[in-house]
Amino acid sequence: MSKILVFGHQNPDTDATASAYGWAYLERTAWGRDAEAVLLGEPNEETQFALDYFGVTAPRVVTSAVAEGVSQVILTDHNEFQQSIADIHDVEVLAVIDHHRVANFETANPLYMRLEPVGSASSIVYRASKEAGVTLPREVAGLLLSGLISDTLLLKSPTTHASDPQVAAELAEIAGVDLEEYGLNLLKAGTNLASKSAEELIDIDAKTFELNSNPVRVAQVNTVDIAEVLVRQAEIEAAITAAMTANGYSDFVLMITDILNSNSEILALGSNMDKVEAAFNFTLENNHAFLAGAVSRKKQVVPQLTESFGA
Amino acid sequence: MSKILVFGHQNPDTDATASAYGWAYLERTAWGRDAEAVLLGEPNEETQFALDYFGVTAPRVVTSAVAEGVSQVILTDHNEFQQSIADIHDVEVLAVIDHHRVANFETANPLYMRLEPVGSASSIVYRASKEAGVTLPREVAGLLLSGLISDTLLLKSPTTHASDPQVAAELAEIAGVDLEEYGLNLLKAGTNLASKSAEELIDIDAKTFELNSNPVRVAQVNTVDIAEVLVRQAEIEAAITAAMTANGYSDFVLMITDILNSNSEILALGSNMDKVEAAFNFTLENNHAFLAGAVSRKKQVVPQLTESFGA
Repeated sequence: MSKILVFGHQNPDTDATASAYGWAYLERTAWGRDAEAVLLGEPNEETQFALDYFGVTAPRVVTSAVAEGVSQVILTDHNEFQQSIADIHDVEVLAVIDHHRVANFETANPLYMRLEPVGSASSIVYRASKEAGVTLPREVAGLLLSGLISDTLLLKSPTTHASDPQVAAELAEIAGVDLEEYGLNLLKAGTNLASKSAEELIDIDAKTFELNSNPVRVAQVNTVDIAEVLVRQAEIEAAITAAMTANGYSDFVLMITDILNSNSEILALGSNMDKVEAAFNFTLENNHAFLAGAVSRKKQVVPQLTESFGA
Repeated sequence: MSKILVFGHQNPDTDATASAYGWAYLERTAWGRDAEAVLLGEPNEETQFALDYFGVTAPRVVTSAVAEGVSQVILTDHNEFQQSIADIHDVEVLAVIDHHRVANFETANPLYMRLEPVGSASSIVYRASKEAGVTLPREVAGLLLSGLISDTLLLKSPTTHASDPQVAAELAEIAGVDLEEYGLNLLKAGTNLASKSAEELIDIDAKTFELNSNPVRVAQVNTVDIAEVLVRQAEIEAAITAAMTANGYSDFVLMITDILNSNSEILALGSNMDKVEAAFNFTLENNHAFLAGAVSRKKQVVPQLTESFGA
C-alpha cells in the first residue's frame, strides 16, 4: 500500500495540526500503516508556539495529494470538501476523525468515520490511542492537549464536552505541563494580531460554508482586547471586500473573540446582512455588533447562520 | 429529554432491524437514554425468521418521526436521507451507526457518527457493546448475529471484514446457536420468492441512489436458483416499469443473487443502460446479464455504477 496522507483543514489551527499529527502517529504505531501528517497551510502563531514548546518540527505543507503520488487520505478536524485539500475529489478518503457537523461530504465506498460531539478532534485521537493500547510520547500528548485547549479556549467554550476536562488532565500529565499555565500561554501566543496585515488577520482561522448556495466565509481571531482590533476596522473591511471579490464569497463574518471574558464582536459584510442580523437577533451598526458569551464558531455562529440562511 | 427513535433504512432488512434493536438496547442499558427501536417498513421473511427464532416481537413500524412527537433520531445501517424516514429533514440526527458509503447526508450540528467498513452495522453495535462493558442478552446477540450473517451471506461476501468471523463466533456463542447451521436456515428463509408478487419481489431489499442526479433504484433478491426467478421475467419487468413511472427512477437494477454459488444475474431497465453496461463491462441481452462472483450491492454494484454515471 502506498503512503497515506493525514491532514486537517485549510488554514490549519492547532487542533487540525495536532489531530493529524497524532492520528498519523497512531496509524504508524498501532496499525503499521505508512502514514504522514501534513498541513494544508503554514501553522499559525499559536500552533507554532505548541510545536516549539514540545520540540516538534512542523509537518510540511502540501497543496495536492495527487502531486504527492498519493491516492488515499485521512481527514482530521474537518469533513467538508471545500475545507479540504484542493484535489480531494481525486483521491479516496479512507477515514475521517472529526467533531464538526457533516456537510458537503460524500464517498463512493464505505470508510472509517469517527465523529464525536466533543471539544476537539484531538480529544478523539487521544481516546482512540487509549483504546488501541498505545502509550503516547510526551510531544504527541502535548500537541493533542494544545489542540483541545485551543478549540475549547481552555475548556471554557460551550463546545467543551463533559469528557474533555478528564482528557485534558490526562494529557497534561503525560505532557508534563500545568494545564492552566500552559493553556493561557498557548492561547496568548495566538493573540498577537498587531504584527499581522489585515489580509493575514482575516485568514488566520477562516472557513467557507455553503449556506443555501451562498459561499459564506466565517473567520475568527482571538484577542485579549476587542477594541485594539476594532481600531483597524477600515483596513480590515478593505481586506474583507477584496477577499469577497477575489473568492466570490456572498458574505464575510468575522468573529473578534475576547479569550479572557469569553465574548465576541461580529464584523460582517456582504449580500445577506438581513440574514446575519436575524441569525443573532442583533442590529449591525457600522457593520459590527456585540455577541455576548459567544466564543464558538461551530456552536454559536454556524448553526445560527445555517438556520437563518434556510440551508 | 424526550424519546429518541432508532431505526435502520426503508425496506428494512435483517441488519437494519438488528442494528437498530441492538443500539436502542445499548442506549437504554449503557447510557440510560429513552430510546426505542422502530422499523420503517414491515420485516421481510428472513428478518421475521430471526425475530421468531429468538422470541422477539417485531418493532412497530413508523412513517413519521414528527407524528411520534420525536425531535431526535439515531440512524443505523444507513445515512443517505432518501433511504431514511420521510421527515428526516425535520428532526435532529443525534448519531449514525453505519457501514455504508456516505452521501446525501448533512447536519447543522456536530453529532456522534460511527462508521466502519465492516460486514454489517450489527458488527459495530456488538463492538460498541463490548467497549461499554454491556453483557448482551441471548436474543440481542442472536439478532446481531443474524444481521451479520444476512449482510455477508454467512461471511462469504467480499464485504466481510477481517474482524467479522471473530464477531460472528462470539455472537453465536452468546446466542447459543451453531453458526453454519443457523446461518443457512436464516438465509434460506429469505429465498422464498414464489409466494411473492412481482411488485413485492422488486421491493424486498431495494434502495435508491442519486447518481449524478439520476435516481437509480438498486434492488436485490436472494435465491437458491436464479433460473426460477428468471422464468418470471415478463412479470418482473412489468412491475419494474410501473415502479419507475410511479417513482421517477431513471433506472432500475435488480440483482438476483444465488446465495449457494455466490453469483448474481443483473436485470436492468431504464434510460442509462449504456452506463450500466459500462459499469460491469458486460452486454445486456434481453435486459439481463450474468455477473460472476457478485453478491454485494455495496461493494460490487453501487461503486461501479457511481463511477460509470460520473457521480
